[in-house]
Amino acid sequence: MRLGELGEFKLIDRIKQQAGLNPDVIRGIGDDAAELKIPAGHHLLTSTDLLIEEVHFRFAWTDGERLGRKAVAVNLSDLAAMGATPRFLYLGLSCPADSELERVEGLLRGVLAECERFGVSLVGGDTCCSPGPWILSVVVEGSAPDGRSVGRNGGRPDDLLMVSGTLGDSALGLSLLQKGKVVPPLLLQRHLAPTPRVALGQALASAGLASAMIDISDGLAADLGHLLRAGRLDAELDLASLPLSTEFAGQYRSNPSLIDLALHGGEDYELLFSVAEDAAPTVERLAAELAVPVSRIGRLKAGSGAIDLREADGQLHPVTADGFDHFASRVGDQP
Amino acid sequence: MRLGELGEFKLIDRIKQQAGLNPDVIRGIGDDAAELKIPAGHHLLTSTDLLIEEVHFRFAWTDGERLGRKAVAVNLSDLAAMGATPRFLYLGLSCPADSELERVEGLLRGVLAECERFGVSLVGGDTCCSPGPWILSVVVEGSAPDGRSVGRNGGRPDDLLMVSGTLGDSALGLSLLQKGKVVPPLLLQRHLAPTPRVALGQALASAGLASAMIDISDGLAADLGHLLRAGRLDAELDLASLPLSTEFAGQYRSNPSLIDLALHGGEDYELLFSVAEDAAPTVERLAAELAVPVSRIGRLKAGSGAIDLREADGQLHPVTADGFDHFASRVGDQP
Repeated sequence: MRLGELGEFKLIDRIKQQAGLNPDVIRGIGDDAAELKIPAGHHLLTSTDLLIEEVHFRFAWTDGERLGRKAVAVNLSDLAAMGATPRFLYLGLSCPADSELERVEGLLRGVLAECERFGVSLVGGDTCCSPGPWILSVVVEGSAPDGRSVGRNGGRPDDLLMVSGTLGDSALGLSLLQKGKVVPPLLLQRHLAPTPRVALGQALASAGLASAMIDISDGLAADLGHLLRAGRLDAELDLASLPLSTEFAGQYRSNPSLIDLALHGGEDYELLFSVAEDAAPTVERLAAELAVPVSRIGRLKAGSGAIDLREADGQLHPVTADGFDHFASRVGDQP
Repeated sequence: MRLGELGEFKLIDRIKQQAGLNPDVIRGIGDDAAELKIPAGHHLLTSTDLLIEEVHFRFAWTDGERLGRKAVAVNLSDLAAMGATPRFLYLGLSCPADSELERVEGLLRGVLAECERFGVSLVGGDTCCSPGPWILSVVVEGSAPDGRSVGRNGGRPDDLLMVSGTLGDSALGLSLLQKGKVVPPLLLQRHLAPTPRVALGQALASAGLASAMIDISDGLAADLGHLLRAGRLDAELDLASLPLSTEFAGQYRSNPSLIDLALHGGEDYELLFSVAEDAAPTVERLAAELAVPVSRIGRLKAGSGAIDLREADGQLHPVTADGFDHFASRVGDQP
């Protein structure tokens, strides 16, 4: 069955039926706007992302359900980086009228499954026809107690830099997909089905442990650059301390240039954060309780955004903070 | 200059510089999420819209600045229909890398001008390259005191139906554009630069005057149908009472079939609401103070979503509540 045969209003009814109940949702899907309760003493935190076919995803590599999960996950990752509790989600969906209904329903299953996993309610959105690519617009709203969120700008000289999980897996997975090579399952999963570090972000924020925090979506160096410029800091990273998965490390041994993917590859969706040195053991205990690996990868100092990497020779080498520029990177490709 | 030459991060910096300050914005553009204060005792109200080139707009008929204004206005209209105060806005923008920078900057000027007009702060968004059409994703957040918002579902039998402004102008303007005919300035303005009825919606809600309310985006009959089904009601409309602009009425006299545009044409962005009969004079006084015309166009009765229109012959004729279905209407056009 094609989406056009079902029609827009029946699609919205189907979404509404599946969206579940939440006492904080005063009005959900089916009015001009959603009406929601935010806990007293909390601030509202909101993030939004656009995901566009052939820019952010390809159906040759993913399916509706995994795409739906990832669309939610990358947005939750932004709230995780503030230490916020995610609460409400909106899905804007534009796809061709002749889209397979099964793909649309798979997408909804994925969106709702990822929402349920993190206690988030789907409360609104928009649906319309697309003249070409599939387009997803995801908005997530959450909250944090007044004064308890963590921004990019709070890092202090001498703070340790820490990162969750491992680096470069997603970019290596994507690179293997692009080359048509066999992709080890972990790398594929890290690219197509990332896990937002929601519990870790909340725990670091509510205990006041992280001085600055950002999620790694544009690559370690680029996102570290944002954190450094926001806090007027430089950073020194230690190459030997960068956390690599077994799968990544295996390929890296035979191809040392892959370190560029750990430094500059996008879509890790790990948390990069700074902590006072004497708080680091507390952070490590807390992360162990949450079963999330964390690593000390460097240190902050006063400065203006520069990153130096201590390499195997013991010397410091500058690292550029270049990230993925959506417009610049495409200029040469455009007709 | 092309957008690709400026690059994504410089574009975001430009947006950030122009976005202004607001004490309720704890963190705005430039962090992983915006952090905002919602007034104590208020609920959060949120609406989101996708606008896609060749589906919702054409640059042959509009320009960046007018598009930016309209993108904000149609979202504010949704909050107006709840009686909420709009506060914060997010702009997702995806366009080809070879887009003229002047068009992008015009769009931002329009977005910021419309935000300023309604006291709304631009606090976040997303930017990325599009493989084809321009894509805008707009999110607006506002608030209303607990218990003071107006939904679609509160209408009562015997309530009067009222509507702001005039009907069908936008659809007639679009129809003339599509036929390549001369478009009277008012009809063009009503299509390209609609005014959201924010003050009227807030006034009706805060005074507890409207029992149900919706904005007319899909056409009077379709949006009335939503209000009726939500409240288990029928409606009787009076043809002679439907408010028409001088420009619309002039064309209607020589072409009576144009009444279909007043009943079914989209994008009026007027408020349709129900009020107890004895409250109607108060509504009319209040609307006059706000310089917004309002008209009594019919009455509610118990039922299940049916609409009857009393025509010139004094007889009641059924009106279908069909609105624009984004997917169904396109099936035949797809390759």
